[in-house]
Amino acid sequence: MKKASIVSIGNELLSGQIVDTNAAYLSERLLSIGIPVVSFYTVGDDLDSIVRALHLASEDGDIIVISGGLGATDDDVTRQALAKFLGGELQLQSELLEKIQGAFVCRGRSMSERDKIQAYMPEGAKALENKLGIAPGIKAGYRGKLFFILPGVPAEMKEMFEEQVLPPILSSTEDSGGQAIVVRKLRCFGAGESAIADLVGDVMKRGRNPLINCTAEHGVITLHIVAAAKDKSTAEQMAEKDEKMLRKYLGELVYGVGEQTLAEVVGEELARQKKTIAVAESCTGGALSKLITDVAGASRYFTYGWVTYSDKAKTSELGVSKDLIEKYGAVSEQAAKAMAEGARKRAKADFAVGITGIAGPSGGNEQKPVGLVYISVSADNYTEIKRFIFPGNRQLIQFRAALTGLNMLRLRL
Amino acid sequence: MKKASIVSIGNELLSGQIVDTNAAYLSERLLSIGIPVVSFYTVGDDLDSIVRALHLASEDGDIIVISGGLGATDDDVTRQALAKFLGGELQLQSELLEKIQGAFVCRGRSMSERDKIQAYMPEGAKALENKLGIAPGIKAGYRGKLFFILPGVPAEMKEMFEEQVLPPILSSTEDSGGQAIVVRKLRCFGAGESAIADLVGDVMKRGRNPLINCTAEHGVITLHIVAAAKDKSTAEQMAEKDEKMLRKYLGELVYGVGEQTLAEVVGEELARQKKTIAVAESCTGGALSKLITDVAGASRYFTYGWVTYSDKAKTSELGVSKDLIEKYGAVSEQAAKAMAEGARKRAKADFAVGITGIAGPSGGNEQKPVGLVYISVSADNYTEIKRFIFPGNRQLIQFRAALTGLNMLRLRL
Repeated sequence: MKKASIVSIGNELLSGQIVDTNAAYLSERLLSIGIPVVSFYTVGDDLDSIVRALHLASEDGDIIVISGGLGATDDDVTRQALAKFLGGELQLQSELLEKIQGAFVCRGRSMSERDKIQAYMPEGAKALENKLGIAPGIKAGYRGKLFFILPGVPAEMKEMFEEQVLPPILSSTEDSGGQAIVVRKLRCFGAGESAIADLVGDVMKRGRNPLINCTAEHGVITLHIVAAAKDKSTAEQMAEKDEKMLRKYLGELVYGVGEQTLAEVVGEELARQKKTIAVAESCTGGALSKLITDVAGASRYFTYGWVTYSDKAKTSELGVSKDLIEKYGAVSEQAAKAMAEGARKRAKADFAVGITGIAGPSGGNEQKPVGLVYISVSADNYTEIKRFIFPGNRQLIQFRAALTGLNMLRLRL
Repeated sequence: MKKASIVSIGNELLSGQIVDTNAAYLSERLLSIGIPVVSFYTVGDDLDSIVRALHLASEDGDIIVISGGLGATDDDVTRQALAKFLGGELQLQSELLEKIQGAFVCRGRSMSERDKIQAYMPEGAKALENKLGIAPGIKAGYRGKLFFILPGVPAEMKEMFEEQVLPPILSSTEDSGGQAIVVRKLRCFGAGESAIADLVGDVMKRGRNPLINCTAEHGVITLHIVAAAKDKSTAEQMAEKDEKMLRKYLGELVYGVGEQTLAEVVGEELARQKKTIAVAESCTGGALSKLITDVAGASRYFTYGWVTYSDKAKTSELGVSKDLIEKYGAVSEQAAKAMAEGARKRAKADFAVGITGIAGPSGGNEQKPVGLVYISVSADNYTEIKRFIFPGNRQLIQFRAALTGLNMLRLRL
C-alpha cells in the first residue's frame, strides 16, 4: 500500500499566526483514495530546514505533498530547496515565463524582476498550472517517489491538488491495484471516552480492519470507523457491519452520524413531529438558544428564548415565584422546574428546557459548587429534572450544560 | 537564544479529521516569551513514530512540547513512547493514582481498570495536573532538554500550558540572558483588514523592528507589535512607542489590548459606570447574550435577554406592535428600534440592544437579502439604529451582528 507524507512550509506557521489547515485537507483527501498519510513536517522558510524535511518525508512516504514558499518574495525558497534536494540547479523555463507574464497582464498588474523566479524549475521537474494565482506548482520524481509542491494559499492549493495532483496519483495507484477506504463517524453523547471504550470492548484495538478510533470534544464522543478493502463496496459493507455492531453496544448514546450536531438531530426530530420548543436559561447565558438557532431553519420549531440572568427576570418573565427562590435558591431543582414550566406555558410551546446553575469561576460554595447545574425538560404530561456537576472552566460548563439540555430533550422525543 | 520544537500526536490529525490548532497556539505563546519554534512534527499513535519524532524534535529545540495520546484508550501510547525515548520504564505513581481516583469521584463517574494507565510515569518524570480533565501531563528533562507532554484536547492543553509549562520555561530563560521579545496586541473592531493596513501606512513592512503584523478573525482585527531588543525594558519602550503611534492612526477602532474581547471591554465599562444592559435578539438567536455572559461576573450588569425568534414572541415579550410588524416587517429599522426600546423598558435597564435580520441561508429576497441586519441601541435619552449587510454564512452573519451590537454599545459608553 502506498503511503504519503506532507511538508508544510512557512514562518507564519511556526510563529502561530496561521493554523495549518492545508495538511488536514490534503490528508483527508489522500486517505479517501486509499493513501494514508503517515507524517507531517512543518518548517520555516529556510533552505536547509526544507531540504532536511524533504529527506525525512521521503523516508516515510511514496508520495510527498509540499505546500508553501513558492511566491516571489525573498523568503520563499521552497523551489531552491527542492533543486538542492534533487541535486540539480534551477533553470529558467521560457515558456513558463511567457505564461506568467500573461497571467500578470490578465490581472492588469505589471510583472517585476523579482517575479521571474517563479519561471524557474529544478532540472527534470514539471510546472503545475496555478489557475487562481501566479506561482506555478512543481511536480518531480526522484528515486521512485513523487513530489508535488503546491502554493500555501488554501484556495490555490486545493484547486491545484484536485485538478493536477489527484488524477496522476489515482492513475498510478489504480495500476498497482490500490485500496478503497470508507470512513464513517458515529456521534455519541452522554458518556465519557473511557466508558464508551469499555462498552465497545476490544474493537478499538490497533491493527484491526476496520480501524475504530475515538475522539472527544466538549462531551461529544466521535467513533471513527475506517474500513479498508480492495474495492469500495466491500469497504462499505465492512463499515456498515461495524456501525451496526457499535450501535448495538452503545444504544441511545449514539445520537447521529457524520458531521451531525446534537442541535441538528433534535431540530430535525422537532420539525418532523411538528413540535415547538422554548428555552429558559440562567447560567448558560444564551448558549442553548444559540446552539438551537445555529441550525438553519430553526424558526420552524424554536419560538421563544429567555436569558433570565437575574432573579427578578426569572420572576417577571417566567413566573418563578419569589418565595420559591427565597426558599430553595435560584440554583435549585425547584427553580429549574419552574423555569421550564413557566417558559413552556408562556411560549405555548410543546417542550421547554430550563437551566440554572453556577458557571463560575466565583459564586460557588460547599453545598453548591461551581459546575452545579440543574436542567429541566417540560412537556404537557411530565417534567423531568436532573442535577449535574460539570467539570472545567466557565465556558466548558456552559457548553456542556447546554448540550446536556439538548440531549435530555432528544431522549424524550 | 533558546529554541523550541513541537510534536503533535494522533491518528485523527494524520487522517485529517482534526485540524491541529494546538501547534499554532503553542508556538504563538512560546514566541511571545522570546522562544521561537523551529519545527513541528506530526505523527500518528504509533510507538516507534513517536520515539523518532522525539529524537528529531530534540535535535531542533531546547524545549520540546508534545501534545496528544495521553488518554486511557489502547491507541494512546505517548507516555510509553517517552519512556522508551528516555530509556526507562513506566512506573505506577500511587499518589497520582489516588488523585485520578479522586477526579473520577468528583465527576460522579467510576474509574475503570483501563484508566489506571494514566497514573504511570516514565522514571524521573513529573506529573502535571490536569484541572479540566483526567489525564495528567508529563514533564521530563533529558540531556539538557526539557520535554512537556500535554493532553490533545485544546482546553486541557491550554490550561496546563499556561499554568504549569510557561512559568518554569520563563524562569529558566530569564537566567540565561538572551534576547528579549515583547509582544503587544491591539484589538480593533469596525474596519476591515485592508482599511486598517491603509490607515497605519508602511509600518507593516517586513524586517522592521518592532515587527507589526495583523490577523483577522470574525471582524476583529488584531495588530501584533513584536519588539526585539537586548533587554526587556528597551523592548517594552519600543513596543510602547509603536502602540501609541498605532492608537493615534486608528482612534476609536482600537477597543482593547492583549486577549481582551469586546464583551469584556464593554462589560468592564458597564460595571464601572454601574449601568445595566438588556438584550433582545432575533436573527442572532442568543449569540449576543452568550457573548456577554461568557465574561465572568456578567451578572453585575446583564439582567434580561430575550430570543424573540417568532413575531408572536416579539409582540408578547417586547411589546413590538403587530401593526408595526405588518407594515414594515420583522426585519426592519422600526422593529429593531421597538425591540431595543421594549427590552429596555421591560428590564428597567440603562441600555438595551435590539437585533433583527436575515441570517440565512434562506429567507432573503432582493429588497432584504441574506446578511441584512438592523441593530438598535437604546438608552434613556436616545435610540440609535444602523443597517448592515454582513457577508459570510449563517454562523458568521450571526457572530458579526452580535459583535457589531456590542461595538455600537461600546462607542456609546
